[in-house]
Amino acid sequence: MNFLEEKIMADGVVKAGDILKVDNFLNHQIDINVIRQIAHELKRRFEGERIDKVVTIEASGITIATLLGDLCGVPVVFAKKGETANSTDDKYVSEAYSFTHKRMNQVFISRPYLHAGERILIVDDFLADGQAVHALIDIVHQAAAEVVGIGIAIEKGQQQGGRILRSEGYHLESIAIVESMDPETQAIRFRQQ
Amino acid sequence: MNFLEEKIMADGVVKAGDILKVDNFLNHQIDINVIRQIAHELKRRFEGERIDKVVTIEASGITIATLLGDLCGVPVVFAKKGETANSTDDKYVSEAYSFTHKRMNQVFISRPYLHAGERILIVDDFLADGQAVHALIDIVHQAAAEVVGIGIAIEKGQQQGGRILRSEGYHLESIAIVESMDPETQAIRFRQQ
Repeated sequence: MNFLEEKIMADGVVKAGDILKVDNFLNHQIDINVIRQIAHELKRRFEGERIDKVVTIEASGITIATLLGDLCGVPVVFAKKGETANSTDDKYVSEAYSFTHKRMNQVFISRPYLHAGERILIVDDFLADGQAVHALIDIVHQAAAEVVGIGIAIEKGQQQGGRILRSEGYHLESIAIVESMDPETQAIRFRQQ
Repeated sequence: MNFLEEKIMADGVVKAGDILKVDNFLNHQIDINVIRQIAHELKRRFEGERIDKVVTIEASGITIATLLGDLCGVPVVFAKKGETANSTDDKYVSEAYSFTHKRMNQVFISRPYLHAGERILIVDDFLADGQAVHALIDIVHQAAAEVVGIGIAIEKGQQQGGRILRSEGYHLESIAIVESMDPETQAIRFRQQ
């Protein structure tokens, strides 16, 4: 098991409804040592790629993106989300369904912060159905920029996001991929990588 | 002028309605070098204080809190906000009016992530009316924890948040305090510190 799989086994809580609660170290209380390791590991997995910018979406992805941007020496952009963007004329806008809030969210990045030809690494804390990542890909493409890869801390391998992104040809790296989990026994099985 | 005042003069845009737009380096596109300097400067200003945890509120404060937590070697907790928290029984909840979204937001932190007696440094990117910081203070006090200080990147000195917090006796440090700004000439005057 790698460091993140070990951390999930130690501190994650499996709840009914296919929920993996890791808000004690990843997305509410932040264990900076774990986030730093995630950033180092993502840097390692995309070593050799030229990256101009790290792009994520508010809010939980920002910790990882910040430390990764710091390591790589590149700017970070975080997409904002809301039920309605005030105006679309100076923004790239896409949409993502939020399973947490059970509604469509608009996702947007101001036009000046993405440029044609830029090589973008998309990062996020979680990948499940891939709604948020697909919205970010759409926005990067609207700007005629290029998606170099997608770096994820925890992928829920039972959901379709990872399968679709890989079948679309994206270089997707997830540090931990959960294959199955059991709320009764708290057992978690990870995909061998 | 310090590094942040210089950056604001170089890249900030003053708009009508008392708006200072700094989303090209602080709260949408992130200039990691500037955030790192902000984190170092906040660490310096609270040197000698024992800090157990850095607390901020999603989303823009997370970049500063992450690098400051990393520097100080302490965990970070970011408060979440929403129109309604799902349930209040395992959370400390407060309220803050959002001038951006023109509505009351609930602000909350899960109970396990704040403990009685902990010494908390609150940080955020902006301080204007102080609604968000007061909600965080309320939550810290609900947990019987202690507010060691409040570290802010940019304070809008024309608005009341800073004056109220200082009159309440809090140790408030703002790296740049804007006294006045002119959307016609783009002139910005900073408070001497």
